[in-house]
Amino acid sequence: MYYVGVDLGGTNIAVGLVNENAEIVNKESIKSKLPRPAEELLKDMAQLIIKVCDDAGVSMNEVKSIGIGTPGSCDCANGVLVYANNLGYENVSFKDEIHKYIDKPVYIENDANVAALAEYIKKDRKMECFVAVTLGTGVGGGVIINGKIFSSFNGAGAELGHTVMVCDGEPCSCGRNGCLEAYASATSLIRQTKEEMEKSPESLMNEIGMVKVTGRTAFDAARQGDAAGKRVVDNYIRYVAEGITNIVNIFQPEELVIGGGVCNEGDYLLLPIIDYVKKNQYVKKLKTTKISIAELGNDAGIIGAAMLGL
Amino acid sequence: MYYVGVDLGGTNIAVGLVNENAEIVNKESIKSKLPRPAEELLKDMAQLIIKVCDDAGVSMNEVKSIGIGTPGSCDCANGVLVYANNLGYENVSFKDEIHKYIDKPVYIENDANVAALAEYIKKDRKMECFVAVTLGTGVGGGVIINGKIFSSFNGAGAELGHTVMVCDGEPCSCGRNGCLEAYASATSLIRQTKEEMEKSPESLMNEIGMVKVTGRTAFDAARQGDAAGKRVVDNYIRYVAEGITNIVNIFQPEELVIGGGVCNEGDYLLLPIIDYVKKNQYVKKLKTTKISIAELGNDAGIIGAAMLGL
Repeated sequence: MYYVGVDLGGTNIAVGLVNENAEIVNKESIKSKLPRPAEELLKDMAQLIIKVCDDAGVSMNEVKSIGIGTPGSCDCANGVLVYANNLGYENVSFKDEIHKYIDKPVYIENDANVAALAEYIKKDRKMECFVAVTLGTGVGGGVIINGKIFSSFNGAGAELGHTVMVCDGEPCSCGRNGCLEAYASATSLIRQTKEEMEKSPESLMNEIGMVKVTGRTAFDAARQGDAAGKRVVDNYIRYVAEGITNIVNIFQPEELVIGGGVCNEGDYLLLPIIDYVKKNQYVKKLKTTKISIAELGNDAGIIGAAMLGL
Repeated sequence: MYYVGVDLGGTNIAVGLVNENAEIVNKESIKSKLPRPAEELLKDMAQLIIKVCDDAGVSMNEVKSIGIGTPGSCDCANGVLVYANNLGYENVSFKDEIHKYIDKPVYIENDANVAALAEYIKKDRKMECFVAVTLGTGVGGGVIINGKIFSSFNGAGAELGHTVMVCDGEPCSCGRNGCLEAYASATSLIRQTKEEMEKSPESLMNEIGMVKVTGRTAFDAARQGDAAGKRVVDNYIRYVAEGITNIVNIFQPEELVIGGGVCNEGDYLLLPIIDYVKKNQYVKKLKTTKISIAELGNDAGIIGAAMLGL
């Protein structure tokens, strides 16, 4: 049997056909073309699902279910997207819309949660608790408890990015000030980089980031020995590490993976975080959390969504 | 059948005999007399257990199990206290020691966790997630997921008080700076009160707290219209509310109760917290967390420990 996984984002709709070993056998994506009515977007999604299966030579009889990972808060039991401010949708039954075109079980879940599920399944061992933290445009969190996504009674749990770490600090997209997201997202890293570039005209960052400042600018400069770049990176990593220490103290996950664009920095990002958490976590006399970089990259969304049907 | 619950603290060992309706039928306490060897303390505990049952006219045949709530991190599966800095114990098998005197199943758990379990059972309805936050000497947390204590793979999860909320802020007992505990504990409230008393010699707090400054001093002054007292209380409540908003965003518990000495302030504490969380929580379009004051007071430790045997 096969499972369809959909990674719905503000920019793209990515559809993948996934086998029982959680491997993608075919995938394709189209633009989300937002803003537009949900009915239109979901019609396009259904047609792409049919095409991805057709192109792989897999008939709908061989497909067990369709899973959709979406930004926002979901009523998972009923297949309804309750609210997603960045899609502009409220109370949309994904299940009913997809059922107009395809007669298969439809599951929906928050995108950070399905990505965490995919990374958990990839680890291929049972854990009481597993956490994935995504450092992207925002900071997303997914928590897997005893093999199941933890999203609590309203489907909105595990918003790990929206925890204040710097009281009265930088404004966050959620309306509060000083959230982890406001310091540890790629967006915030870019802001921190730009601020330091203005303060340090001699910095290599002004050269590297001349055309466009990205989440890589400060890291690239720091690797080349640039002092200002190193200040940005050290400061950024400290915030990430402080946030991850909080998460470790709360969940004591057996493993925690860090995903999102920033994690392409690899050990340069990871090793100081591991070091910081080791020194600062509450528990020091017990088994402690293993921290690593997420393995699935952009495919985590498709694979995790598909695995909702397992 | 009956269940024995033990609330072990740095000052007292409280033992209660609890019936199947989670009601205490007899209880008694003795001093912990720390520091002293664990063997001695656990011998006294066993003798008190026997006495509490005897005094109630309940034979050991009618007792199903013994549950012990203790500070520190537990290996619950094996009945071992792994580490408790404020008891001064490391790797003590409570189970083996109690078994020298009483042949009953012995369960151990962290004290904040058992208190949360007791408050959950008191609510008498199934919830996917329930959280108890204790504002006492420290800030404790207990999380109940699907009716079970969540403490993760090493038994040390849910240290909600040890999450940094004010980066580089006040020093915390855990070694970090700016933890929720360093701002929201009764200890911290007393510190904040003393600081404001020095700054405001005209404040009523200097009169109320002349003999001893307690967690009530600022609240008592504020209720009488004292401006400085109100500043302390507003500031304190803001930190508590910020921390609880974080917890709500992470766990989205169906209900959250606030316990510990400070919660004797009742609505004067509770209502501004509810208001703050309502305005600041991430989720606004869904069902949200019900926040209230814990119901069981000091008995939560005994009842929750006893209920470990259920």
